[in-house]
Amino acid sequence: MAAVKVHGAPLSTAFQRAVVCLYEKEVDFEVVPVDMRAGAHKQEPFISLNPFGQVPAFEDGDLQLFESRAITKYIAEEYAEKGTQLIPFETKKKAIASVWMEVEAHQFDPVASKLAWEIIFKPMFGMTTDQAAVEENEAKLAKVLDVYENRLSKSKYMGGDCITLADLHHLPNLQCLLGTNVKSQFESRPHVKAWVADITSRPTWAKVLAMLKP
Amino acid sequence: MAAVKVHGAPLSTAFQRAVVCLYEKEVDFEVVPVDMRAGAHKQEPFISLNPFGQVPAFEDGDLQLFESRAITKYIAEEYAEKGTQLIPFETKKKAIASVWMEVEAHQFDPVASKLAWEIIFKPMFGMTTDQAAVEENEAKLAKVLDVYENRLSKSKYMGGDCITLADLHHLPNLQCLLGTNVKSQFESRPHVKAWVADITSRPTWAKVLAMLKP
Repeated sequence: MAAVKVHGAPLSTAFQRAVVCLYEKEVDFEVVPVDMRAGAHKQEPFISLNPFGQVPAFEDGDLQLFESRAITKYIAEEYAEKGTQLIPFETKKKAIASVWMEVEAHQFDPVASKLAWEIIFKPMFGMTTDQAAVEENEAKLAKVLDVYENRLSKSKYMGGDCITLADLHHLPNLQCLLGTNVKSQFESRPHVKAWVADITSRPTWAKVLAMLKP
Repeated sequence: MAAVKVHGAPLSTAFQRAVVCLYEKEVDFEVVPVDMRAGAHKQEPFISLNPFGQVPAFEDGDLQLFESRAITKYIAEEYAEKGTQLIPFETKKKAIASVWMEVEAHQFDPVASKLAWEIIFKPMFGMTTDQAAVEENEAKLAKVLDVYENRLSKSKYMGGDCITLADLHHLPNLQCLLGTNVKSQFESRPHVKAWVADITSRPTWAKVLAMLKP
């Protein structure tokens, strides 16, 4: 039995965020399935792992964590010597990568999550898409991606010259939106388009997507 | 002239978040005022420091950062040997503190910011409070604070036995809400109430609040 366990379900974007990081770091892990359709994430024993009732939860021996971005940061630091280096060692480079991790969390994620919820998940659960919310968030996304286009014209990756968590954290919501009309926003900006092609073609991401297949 | 500069305005909660951290770390700094009422944060030269046009921006010599939580993490690491230790050194303790920093960012902040916007800032700017949004977010805050009450019954501070960034990051929005009816939600939970009294009475926070006085 692996010491590292990730509790969750492949459809969860936050679960995917933790798992792609584990693959990049070449850390052996075990998935503990959480039956979200049955509401298992809102009940014991899961609720003892994350009192907010959200996947993923994470264990490494006796250490228990939740919140996907706290999990990825722990994995990147604890297993620094394994796999891809995902956080720069040097303090100032690390600080720059940290800025763009916060940008993902506070500028990209609220908008991209809302679009994915309205366009993909609501219809999947038999709910009606709020078209006004879609348009409002498409406009917000355009502004965010204008900043990304400028950033990526000067830096190969969001956090610097090499891939970091600042890129990987985008993957799950990004992948969702690539299956919708919102894709055109990524395609119409050449540096964003190249960055999307680069990070979505990583073999580790293909392994995450393979988990979604029945 | 100090090497460390914080660009912003005292009324900004994100500016306050960066500044309280600088005081805790006993780092000399200079405030570069940004006239937000005149829209200076949406124009050059500020927009070159933060392309999203939000305060604060931060400089330490030739390093330029934005996003308040990236700034505080940099300060806590770069000036680790000065002032209060705000991030645990040990990897597992650090990971736990990181979880609760993410909780502040993803569970507390969206709800508390929305409440502060509706109850305090909208009337200040001559706009009308959306009462339905207030009620919706008060209900969400109650659920978050139930988790906090349980957490703080087991741990003196959010991130562990000692104060960390996970506590300090709450201060600005927390202080806003203490001036509203929402205060009762903090007062009715004994461990939350004690934690609020503890962190809001820090001399460093008094120095931040003193910046708000005319």
